Amino acid sequence: MSEFTFDLCAQDGRGRAGTFSTPHGVLQTPIFAPVGTLASVKALTPDQVVGAGSTLILANTYHLYLRPGEGVIQEHGGLHQFMGWPGPILTDSGGFQVFSLAERRIVDEEGVTFRSHVDGSEHRFTPEKVVEIQEQLGADIIMAFDECPEPYDRAYNEAALARTHAWAERCLSVKTRDDQALFGIVQGGIFPDLRKESASYIASLDFPGNAIGGLSVGETKDEMHTILEIIDAVLSQEKPRYLMGVGAPDDIVECVLRGIDIFDCVLPTRMARNHAALTNRGRMNLRKAQYAKDLRPIDESCSCYTCSSFSRAYVRHLCATREMLAGTLLSIHNIHTLMTLVSDLREAIIDGTLENYVDDFRVNYSKHRDARA
Amino acid sequence: MSEFTFDLCAQDGRGRAGTFSTPHGVLQTPIFAPVGTLASVKALTPDQVVGAGSTLILANTYHLYLRPGEGVIQEHGGLHQFMGWPGPILTDSGGFQVFSLAERRIVDEEGVTFRSHVDGSEHRFTPEKVVEIQEQLGADIIMAFDECPEPYDRAYNEAALARTHAWAERCLSVKTRDDQALFGIVQGGIFPDLRKESASYIASLDFPGNAIGGLSVGETKDEMHTILEIIDAVLSQEKPRYLMGVGAPDDIVECVLRGIDIFDCVLPTRMARNHAALTNRGRMNLRKAQYAKDLRPIDESCSCYTCSSFSRAYVRHLCATREMLAGTLLSIHNIHTLMTLVSDLREAIIDGTLENYVDDFRVNYSKHRDARA
Repeated sequence: MSEFTFDLCAQDGRGRAGTFSTPHGVLQTPIFAPVGTLASVKALTPDQVVGAGSTLILANTYHLYLRPGEGVIQEHGGLHQFMGWPGPILTDSGGFQVFSLAERRIVDEEGVTFRSHVDGSEHRFTPEKVVEIQEQLGADIIMAFDECPEPYDRAYNEAALARTHAWAERCLSVKTRDDQALFGIVQGGIFPDLRKESASYIASLDFPGNAIGGLSVGETKDEMHTILEIIDAVLSQEKPRYLMGVGAPDDIVECVLRGIDIFDCVLPTRMARNHAALTNRGRMNLRKAQYAKDLRPIDESCSCYTCSSFSRAYVRHLCATREMLAGTLLSIHNIHTLMTLVSDLREAIIDGTLENYVDDFRVNYSKHRDARA
Repeated sequence: MSEFTFDLCAQDGRGRAGTFSTPHGVLQTPIFAPVGTLASVKALTPDQVVGAGSTLILANTYHLYLRPGEGVIQEHGGLHQFMGWPGPILTDSGGFQVFSLAERRIVDEEGVTFRSHVDGSEHRFTPEKVVEIQEQLGADIIMAFDECPEPYDRAYNEAALARTHAWAERCLSVKTRDDQALFGIVQGGIFPDLRKESASYIASLDFPGNAIGGLSVGETKDEMHTILEIIDAVLSQEKPRYLMGVGAPDDIVECVLRGIDIFDCVLPTRMARNHAALTNRGRMNLRKAQYAKDLRPIDESCSCYTCSSFSRAYVRHLCATREMLAGTLLSIHNIHTLMTLVSDLREAIIDGTLENYVDDFRVNYSKHRDARA
């Protein structure tokens, strides 16, 4: 596993600034990864994703297994070549999608049989199969196969956790590529004791990094924060921690404060296609008439391509007329905003000013910004 | 009109290679302009349009008058600033849209009253109004207001032609900006005598360039070619000629051969959104299963971003999964293909090898290329 080294450069409270070396580049943490579900960060070329400041992206194993299939991606030399992404890539294990998107799933101790949400065809994922697919896809960071139960169902969470732990060990034992870092996943729903047990178990295995799954799926912010604090106390400080599927600006800030290093989320690109802009002061709905004659950039403090080149009035016009460029320009802006946020958090940790940074952020951030935009 | 000079560098047969100077840059002709109907070349940022090789783009006066309105564009300093396009822009007069898109139109000698296709609201275009709007939009090249009748209706074409000629004079007389070149438009349907009369009349007025409207609207290729040859013999050789709305590769070749300098068309971007690639050997339908494992670029002789970076299999995957990036990548490729075509035609004219170039093109080009791709 010599291609992967994680160095903690600074800590401020529970907040961590680190560097994570991968075969396709060094990541500065905390970091946010935009999502390229089907080997495309929606509405953006790889050049535009790089231009928005991204260094790490995520792609979805379940989706790519179904379409176009891991075989043709392997024939290209892997995901990096297939989608033209020069930097590090992370693939998930398909666990979350099998338990949220797929149909008619049957879980047994060995794996999951399910039907594709695309065409209803039957498939089976096991820990071994999921590692094999991810080795063919060839991402830098890959994930153990996990079961994602309803977060409030105690009995289901207990049974699922036993499987997730057994599957984590099986994933570790069948993995063959040294140029991929396999992360284990902590599960356990909203139950503090299960989360503690899971973190201890996953931490006891020889993973180069750990992930936290099953959060931001309906629990309260307080529940999420409590669980993160429990896990933070158990997981090794020497390994990177990846919180799966979280990416709202306020969540990123609160989770960095609780020891998280890596984030991913569809939020910036999905909101862009719904014509919303993310800023450090809150969200803007660019369809609103109040922006129709507004010559200012979306965010006057932003240096992204969109804010450097276009007015709110122009972006609002693209939204109102449903031009595809609206989604592109807002995706660039939204990703840039999150990359700037994690970069600022990193700087605050290194400077030892994280608490002040977070206090200021909490005062300025609002879910509904338009009224005072 | 000193900001606009057209120099013929070379002629080969009726084919012309020229340079046309505008306030926002010098255009090398023959040239193709992609269409940015609503101040956006669909699915592309201005950077990507430049990257695809474009130097001139078209925007539609009718659409921009309705949304967002010429006032807000003027407040930005004009279309160049509004849409972030650094080079020359051409706006049409709205004539074609009023006669094809608008509803419940009533034509009189002074102008046209119509209802918006967007919301049914009533509007009125006159030659004076159309020049005023285009002066507020601020494009480099603007168009006289014209009537676009059914091409085969003789009586309608005679009546419409009289109006189009009267309107052309009125546009010339109300124009105030010296940094815009106003082009007159030759009409006359498929009737050779009307086309000749129209070309003579428009040529007699003091336009710095001339346009040809009402072609590629249902007539045969032979009819179109005959009319172009009639017009070519009448229009001044010293002024640029712009054939409106034409842009298929084979049409560009045949029309350059008949003395055309400027083209525009939605074809490359519309075909891209329908998942078709233009090449000098014909069209490819990138949704076809035959490309699912094809590691080659769309066009092995193409140097565009898409062909330099991605395989047919990747683009096919994006098409099959309806990713927005498919339209972006194919738009880049299609525009690049047309820009390369007009550049090659220019070179052939300068080298005196236009006839050979066209002979080779006709042999290699097919509307249906997939079978031998």
